[in-house]
Amino acid sequence: MSQRRPERHPSDPPGQAMYGLVKRLFPICRSLTGEGVRQTLRILGEQIPLQVLEVETGTQVFDWSVPKEWNIRGAFIEDPRGKRILDFKDNNLHVVGYSTPVDARLTLEELQEHLHSLADLPDAIPYITSYYAERWGFCLPHTQRLNLEKGEYHVVIDSELKDGHLSYGECLIPGETAEEVFLSTYICHPSMANNELSGPVIATFLAQWLLSAPRRLSYRMVFVPETIGSITYLSKNLQHLKRNVVAGFNITCVGDERVYSYLPSRAGNTPADRSAIHVLDHTHPGFIRWTYLDRGSDERQYCSPGVDLPVASVMRSKYGSYPEYHTSLDNLGFVTPTGLQGSYDVLQKCILVLEANRVYRATSLGEPQLSRRGLYPTLSTRDTKEQVRKMMDLLAYADGENDLIEIATITGVPAWELAPYAETLRAEGLLAVVR
Amino acid sequence: MSQRRPERHPSDPPGQAMYGLVKRLFPICRSLTGEGVRQTLRILGEQIPLQVLEVETGTQVFDWSVPKEWNIRGAFIEDPRGKRILDFKDNNLHVVGYSTPVDARLTLEELQEHLHSLADLPDAIPYITSYYAERWGFCLPHTQRLNLEKGEYHVVIDSELKDGHLSYGECLIPGETAEEVFLSTYICHPSMANNELSGPVIATFLAQWLLSAPRRLSYRMVFVPETIGSITYLSKNLQHLKRNVVAGFNITCVGDERVYSYLPSRAGNTPADRSAIHVLDHTHPGFIRWTYLDRGSDERQYCSPGVDLPVASVMRSKYGSYPEYHTSLDNLGFVTPTGLQGSYDVLQKCILVLEANRVYRATSLGEPQLSRRGLYPTLSTRDTKEQVRKMMDLLAYADGENDLIEIATITGVPAWELAPYAETLRAEGLLAVVR
Amino acid sequence: MSQRRPERHPSDPPGQAMYGLVKRLFPICRSLTGEGVRQTLRILGEQIPLQVLEVETGTQVFDWSVPKEWNIRGAFIEDPRGKRILDFKDNNLHVVGYSTPVDARLTLEELQEHLHSLADLPDAIPYITSYYAERWGFCLPHTQRLNLEKGEYHVVIDSELKDGHLSYGECLIPGETAEEVFLSTYICHPSMANNELSGPVIATFLAQWLLSAPRRLSYRMVFVPETIGSITYLSKNLQHLKRNVVAGFNITCVGDERVYSYLPSRAGNTPADRSAIHVLDHTHPGFIRWTYLDRGSDERQYCSPGVDLPVASVMRSKYGSYPEYHTSLDNLGFVTPTGLQGSYDVLQKCILVLEANRVYRATSLGEPQLSRRGLYPTLSTRDTKEQVRKMMDLLAYADGENDLIEIATITGVPAWELAPYAETLRAEGLLAVVR
Repeated sequence: MSQRRPERHPSDPPGQAMYGLVKRLFPICRSLTGEGVRQTLRILGEQIPLQVLEVETGTQVFDWSVPKEWNIRGAFIEDPRGKRILDFKDNNLHVVGYSTPVDARLTLEELQEHLHSLADLPDAIPYITSYYAERWGFCLPHTQRLNLEKGEYHVVIDSELKDGHLSYGECLIPGETAEEVFLSTYICHPSMANNELSGPVIATFLAQWLLSAPRRLSYRMVFVPETIGSITYLSKNLQHLKRNVVAGFNITCVGDERVYSYLPSRAGNTPADRSAIHVLDHTHPGFIRWTYLDRGSDERQYCSPGVDLPVASVMRSKYGSYPEYHTSLDNLGFVTPTGLQGSYDVLQKCILVLEANRVYRATSLGEPQLSRRGLYPTLSTRDTKEQVRKMMDLLAYADGENDLIEIATITGVPAWELAPYAETLRAEGLLAVVR
Repeated sequence: MSQRRPERHPSDPPGQAMYGLVKRLFPICRSLTGEGVRQTLRILGEQIPLQVLEVETGTQVFDWSVPKEWNIRGAFIEDPRGKRILDFKDNNLHVVGYSTPVDARLTLEELQEHLHSLADLPDAIPYITSYYAERWGFCLPHTQRLNLEKGEYHVVIDSELKDGHLSYGECLIPGETAEEVFLSTYICHPSMANNELSGPVIATFLAQWLLSAPRRLSYRMVFVPETIGSITYLSKNLQHLKRNVVAGFNITCVGDERVYSYLPSRAGNTPADRSAIHVLDHTHPGFIRWTYLDRGSDERQYCSPGVDLPVASVMRSKYGSYPEYHTSLDNLGFVTPTGLQGSYDVLQKCILVLEANRVYRATSLGEPQLSRRGLYPTLSTRDTKEQVRKMMDLLAYADGENDLIEIATITGVPAWELAPYAETLRAEGLLAVVR
Repeated sequence: MSQRRPERHPSDPPGQAMYGLVKRLFPICRSLTGEGVRQTLRILGEQIPLQVLEVETGTQVFDWSVPKEWNIRGAFIEDPRGKRILDFKDNNLHVVGYSTPVDARLTLEELQEHLHSLADLPDAIPYITSYYAERWGFCLPHTQRLNLEKGEYHVVIDSELKDGHLSYGECLIPGETAEEVFLSTYICHPSMANNELSGPVIATFLAQWLLSAPRRLSYRMVFVPETIGSITYLSKNLQHLKRNVVAGFNITCVGDERVYSYLPSRAGNTPADRSAIHVLDHTHPGFIRWTYLDRGSDERQYCSPGVDLPVASVMRSKYGSYPEYHTSLDNLGFVTPTGLQGSYDVLQKCILVLEANRVYRATSLGEPQLSRRGLYPTLSTRDTKEQVRKMMDLLAYADGENDLIEIATITGVPAWELAPYAETLRAEGLLAVVR
C-alpha cells in the first residue's frame, strides 16, 4: 500500500477522519493474537509507517510466556428447533475470547454453564475472555438467555488455538534529541469502540501530525495487545526505554464525549503527569483525577516496580467506570467525531507542553533592560501590560531549576502561551537553555 | 512464687483478668521509691519473668540524682476534740507524697498551710507530691476542709526519708532479630487506676501474650517510676536503646472507656507513630490526635533531644485531660474490664502491625502471571475481586521503598489484612524482603 | 553637620518625629538622579551616619548603564491668554520625570500629545516618567485638561539632561558578627508620601534605634533610586551581599494606616520571610499575603536568579494596590504619624526576631532538673504554669536543628517572648548555641 497520507487537508481537525477509521476497524475480531490483530496493524500501516513484529508462542517474557495464537472463523448456537439463535457473524462479542473449538449438542442446563450475560444490563452482550485457561463459551443479552427453551442445543465454535505468534506494531518518529515520548495503545479487543479503537486511532493521527511537525523530542508509539503485549514489549526494550523515555501516555478510552479524566503514573509527578494536569487544568478544569489505585491498563506494566516508566493516562470515560464498558454498548454510537477530536486536542497539547518544557536560566543578573530591546514601554504609567508581565515573570523564575511547566503553574499562564515568550527572550540572549 | 501463668485460657480476652490485677495492686502506696514499688514489682513478677533492679540514692543520672527512699507506715489528723478526722489507712492519697515525718499540734491556721484540696472538685482527694523539696502535707476533700473547726489539731505522719534505692523492673522477650520494641510504663502512683495501674497491668498481659506468640522482633518492657525512673533507665541503657529500638510506646491511661487518643513522638513519623495512627484510623477513627506539645509522661525523656527514641502513646483519657485525673476519683470505678480490653486490643494490633511491617520488593518485572499460580481468576469479567485487587496493589507498590504500613495507607487496607497476602506472595517467590 | 541625634527622647515612640521628617522631605523634586536626590541624602545624613556615593553616567551595571543626570529648575504652561495655568512650583508632579528641555508655542492639539491625566481619578495629578526614551510632557488633573481652550499655548521646561552621576546613600551599622541584615529603600520619587518617603524615613529611624541598641547582627542600609539604583548597588557589592546577608527587607509603602501586608522573597522561606510572617501572624493576623507574582519594587533585583538575596517586604498599602498610588493623592494626608509608627514597630519586631533567632541545643540528655535551679515548682499539682511550660517546650525542641522562629511557631508563642527564656536557660548552662 503506498497510499499513506490521509485525504483531508493537514490543518483540518481530524475528528471525522478519525471516526471513519474507527468505523473501518470496528468489525474486525481482534484478540491477544491472530489474524484480526494483523489486519488491524495492516490498516493502521496504511496511515503511518508501522513496523509489525511477531513473537513466537512460548517465548518467555518476564514472568509470562507468549500464549498460543487464536483464530476463529465462525460460531453459532442452534436452538432445539434448529433455529440459529446466536451467530458470531452478527457480533464477534458472542464468543468468549480464546474459546477452544467445539461442535456439540447439549441440554439447556449443560449449555448454561457456557453462557455469559449481564442481569444489570439485560440488552448488552458482555465481553468475556479466557486467555490462560482453555474453555469455551458464548455471550448473549440476558433477556435472550432468559427466553431460552428447554431442549437440546447445537453449539459450534470453529476456532483454532495453536502455536503461532503475538503481533504488535511500532512507529518511531525521531526528533532532534534521543529523549523519547512513549505512546502506547492496545489492539486486542473485538468490536468495542471507546475501550479499544479510540486509542489506536488517535495514536495514529497523532503520529501523522508529529511526522508533519517540527519536533525536538523523539516519539515511540506501540500498538500492542494489552498486558501480554506490553510485557512482551518491555521484556525486549526495557533498558532502552529506561534510558530514553522522558514521558509517556497510555492512550485508551479517548473517544466518547463525557468528562475528561486523568490517571497518574505510579510516581505521580513525572513530566507526563505534570503536562497532563497542566493541560487539563487549563482546558477542562472539571476533569476527574483518578489515583494509581484505579489503574487497569498497561500502566500496570509500565509503572511496575523496576520498570518505573513515566507513563500516565488522559482519558474521557475510564475503563471500568462507565456502564457500557466491556459490552456491546461500547459501540459506534458511544464514540463520536467530537469526542475523538477533543481527546486528540488534549493529547496534542500535552505533547506541545512536553516539547516546550525546557529549563531556562536568565543570563543577566538583575532584570535585563527590556526597554532598549523594544520589549518594555518607555513611558511609565500605573499599569504594566499583561504580556510584559508574562515576560518579566518568566525571567524572574528562570533560575536554572524551574522548568517551563513549573513556571507556567506558578504564574497561572498556560505553558503554550509562555513558550513563545521564552523563544523571544532566548533569541534576545536573555534566556539560556539549561536542559 | 512459682505460679507465673494466669489461670484463664490463653485465648480468652484478658479484660476481666486485667481488671482483677488492677484491683489487687490498687491499695498499695507506691511512690518514686520504697516498699510499695517493690511490692508492686513482686506481684507483677508473679505474672511474667521480671528482673528487678535497684539504684542507690545519690546515683547521678544525667542531670538528676536518685532521691532518698521514702516509706510510710501511717498518718492521721485528730481534731481539737481528739477525733481522728483523716487517716492514711482510709486512702493513701491523704498524705502528700514524700512527706517528711511529723508529730505536732497546730492551730487550724497553721494546719491550713499544710492542707491541699480542690474547690472545683469538692468531694475528691487531690494527689500531691513534693519529691524534690522537703515538706509535709495532707490532702482531703474540699467540703471536709471547709467544715474544720477552730482549735488545736494533732497531726502525725509516720514516714521515713533516708538513703536507700530506686527500684524498677525489666522484662526482655527476645525475638528473631535484635530490633526491639520498647514498652515503658510507670509504677509510682498510689491508689489511682487509670493514670497508673492500667499501664503496668496491660503491659504485663501484653508480655504474657508475646511470650506465647511467634515473634520476629524483640521486646523490652520497663516498669519504672515516672521521670526519675525513665531518666535512670536511659542513663544506664541509652546506647543500647538508640542502636536497637525501632518503635516504642509509653503505656499509660489505658483503662477507662472514653475515646481513644494518640500522642506522637517528637519526630512524629516513626514506626511507632505510624502503626498507632494506622491502627486507630481503622479501628477507632474518631480518636483524638494530641500533639507533642500536650506531652506529659515519660515520652518527655524518651523523645528529648539527643535521646530521640521513637516512642509514642496510645491512650484512652490522657493524663491532664479528664476531671478525675490525679484525684481519688481516678479509681476502680473509672477503670473497667471493657476499657482495659479495648486498649489491650489496640496495642496488640500496633505490635502486630510492627511485626508485619517489612519492606518488600516485587521480584518480577511487570505484573507476575498470577493466574497460573491459582491467584487470579482465569475468566476475565468486568469486575476484579477484592482479594485479587489487594494482592495486585501490594505487588504494584512493593518497590523496595514503601513499607507495609505505607502500602496499607495508600491502599486503605489495614496492614493486618495485607500481611497474609504478603506471606502468600513471598511463599510464591513473588515478593522478596528488602528489610 | 554635627547635629546627628534626634531631639526626642530615645524611648519616645518616633511616630511624630518620623512624620516631621516626611514633611520636610516632601517638597523636594527627586528623580533617578540629580540635585533632589543629593539634597534628600544630605537631610537623611543629618540623622544618621550616611556615606553618599556617586556613580558616573554611562557606567555599565549588569545589563544596564547609568543614565544621564537630570535636573530641573522650573516649568510652566501659559494658556492662549498668557495665563500661567500650570506651574512646576506648585507641584513637581506636573512635569514628566526626565523631560527634555522645551520652550515652544503649540496648538492645543499639539499640546495634547504631551499631556497626561487620569479619567478615573479626575482631580489627581498622575506621576509619569520617561527615563529611557527622551521626551517631554506635563501631568495635570483630568478636570483641568477637559477645560483647556483652543489656541496657542506656551510651554517651558527648564531642565537639563547631561552626563553626571547617580547618587545613593549607604549606612553600615556593625554588630558582633559579620552576618548582615540588608535594608533597602528608595529615594527617586518626587512629592509622594507613602510610595516613597515613608520608606527612607522609617529606615532612618530604625538606623537610629539600631545604633543605640546592643546588636548581634550587622546592618546594611541603602537609600537608592529604585531599579537602576539597586542594580547599580548589586553590581558593585554582589559577592559581599551573597556571602553575608542573612535576611533583608525592602522598605516601601509603610506610612498609611490601612491593613498590613507582606510580599515574600522569591525563595519564600528565608529568615526574612519567616520573621515577617511570624511577627504579622502575632501582631496583625489579618494581614494580606501577596505572592512574589505581585512584586514591583527592588525585590525584583534582589531576588532575581543568580542574585537570590533573602529580601522580603512588610508594607501597609502595597504599591499598585491603592487608588492614590503614583498620583498627587499619595500625599501628607495619606501618610500619618500613627501609620508610620505601626510599621516601625513591626519592622523593629522583625529585627528583634532575627537577632533572637539562634539554633540551640539542650545540653542535658532527658529533661534537666529545673526544680533545683528554682525554675520549676517543687510541689506537683494538676496544672503546669505557663512560663514553666514555655521553658520545657523550648528545651524539648532545642535539638540543634530548629531555630527559635521554628520553635516559636510550633509552640504558638511569639519569638520575642521565648527569647528571654532562652537567655535564662543559656545562663544556666542548659542550652548551647549551635549557630
